[in-house]
Amino acid sequence: MRVSELVSASGVPLATVKYYLREGLLMPGEASSATQAEYGEQHVRRLALIKALAGVGLPLGKIRTVVRLVDQPADTVFDTVGRALAALPPYPVESAEQSNDYLRARAVLERLGQVYEPSYPAVAQLDRALAAAEDVGIPMTDERLDAYGRHIRGIAEVDLELMPTDSVESAVEYAVLGTAIYEPVLAALRRLAHQDIGAASFAGRTFDDFTDPHRQDEQ
Amino acid sequence: MRVSELVSASGVPLATVKYYLREGLLMPGEASSATQAEYGEQHVRRLALIKALAGVGLPLGKIRTVVRLVDQPADTVFDTVGRALAALPPYPVESAEQSNDYLRARAVLERLGQVYEPSYPAVAQLDRALAAAEDVGIPMTDERLDAYGRHIRGIAEVDLELMPTDSVESAVEYAVLGTAIYEPVLAALRRLAHQDIGAASFAGRTFDDFTDPHRQDEQ
Repeated sequence: MRVSELVSASGVPLATVKYYLREGLLMPGEASSATQAEYGEQHVRRLALIKALAGVGLPLGKIRTVVRLVDQPADTVFDTVGRALAALPPYPVESAEQSNDYLRARAVLERLGQVYEPSYPAVAQLDRALAAAEDVGIPMTDERLDAYGRHIRGIAEVDLELMPTDSVESAVEYAVLGTAIYEPVLAALRRLAHQDIGAASFAGRTFDDFTDPHRQDEQ
Repeated sequence: MRVSELVSASGVPLATVKYYLREGLLMPGEASSATQAEYGEQHVRRLALIKALAGVGLPLGKIRTVVRLVDQPADTVFDTVGRALAALPPYPVESAEQSNDYLRARAVLERLGQVYEPSYPAVAQLDRALAAAEDVGIPMTDERLDAYGRHIRGIAEVDLELMPTDSVESAVEYAVLGTAIYEPVLAALRRLAHQDIGAASFAGRTFDDFTDPHRQDEQ
């Protein structure tokens, strides 16, 4: 197809397509004349990937990282996917006072018995999230952690089971997009599950019931 | 305690304390002279709550909503907590083209058999997240939804079980902060569970193994 058709097929404006070509994010088409090139399904697919990655908040430099890993995978699946996932936000905030030992995250991961790569951004992300919980006065308890860990593992197992293995591109694309795109789904589902469970537990109850155990028992 | 002691105890700067007093977010102290007021533990606690709510991204107007609900709860626990939770980000983006029927979210909630309040922001949030998954080519399947739904419910049950019921303030504070503050913890735990499970499943495997079932079998 010609570039105008690529624009229609991908929904990406011509100026943006040209920009991605110049930046090397989109592979060049096959020259069909001095001024024209021919594009195919791989170009449509690549544009969809770039669009999707931009949609989950990746800046151009990080999109480049992912696209390069698709084109030149690392030695193993684990390495390739791991490096691609490291391109995802949130990006670590370096601060001078921070010790970067990630002691909170490491304690949690040891309790869960998980192997982890200390330089993987999710370790820093977990450490920051645990510190925030402490700061607001609801630190992570072992009871909560054990329950969260068990259920999150169940979710992660399904994620891995459903991973396509037909090509490097499919695997990397699924890992990066699936990690980012299902996070807000899970967050919204949790808020809605709270509502459903709360509707049953607290139906009609007033705060007086909370503080007076007898009235609570009668219900 | 005097206002200078309140500043030390809360870690909130004097100018900010005065601002919260003017805005009615912090209840006034007890006048001890024409120019001085006496503050107590409730002021320290309120400042900690305001700080925590600001820390999870609530703008001042939404912090006011939560604080008012603590001071003047609605008739039931469910209503009070529900209204407080509606103050949490992400905030709905109204768009002209959007139909606002939330058909995707409603289909999901019906499949999960959950009751929900259609005006609750998490419904819109779920709908947007499901639309994003479709846009990037990995729509939510029933298989994934059923697994996610089951595990998220397990997490939400623990959240409700651990909810303090000694006072309105504790309950509202826990609901709002716990919802917001544990979301990044859960997201980071999922990414790290992927790594742990992936390390075991893909150890040493190359992409050739993916596409050649025989080599995969031999491992």
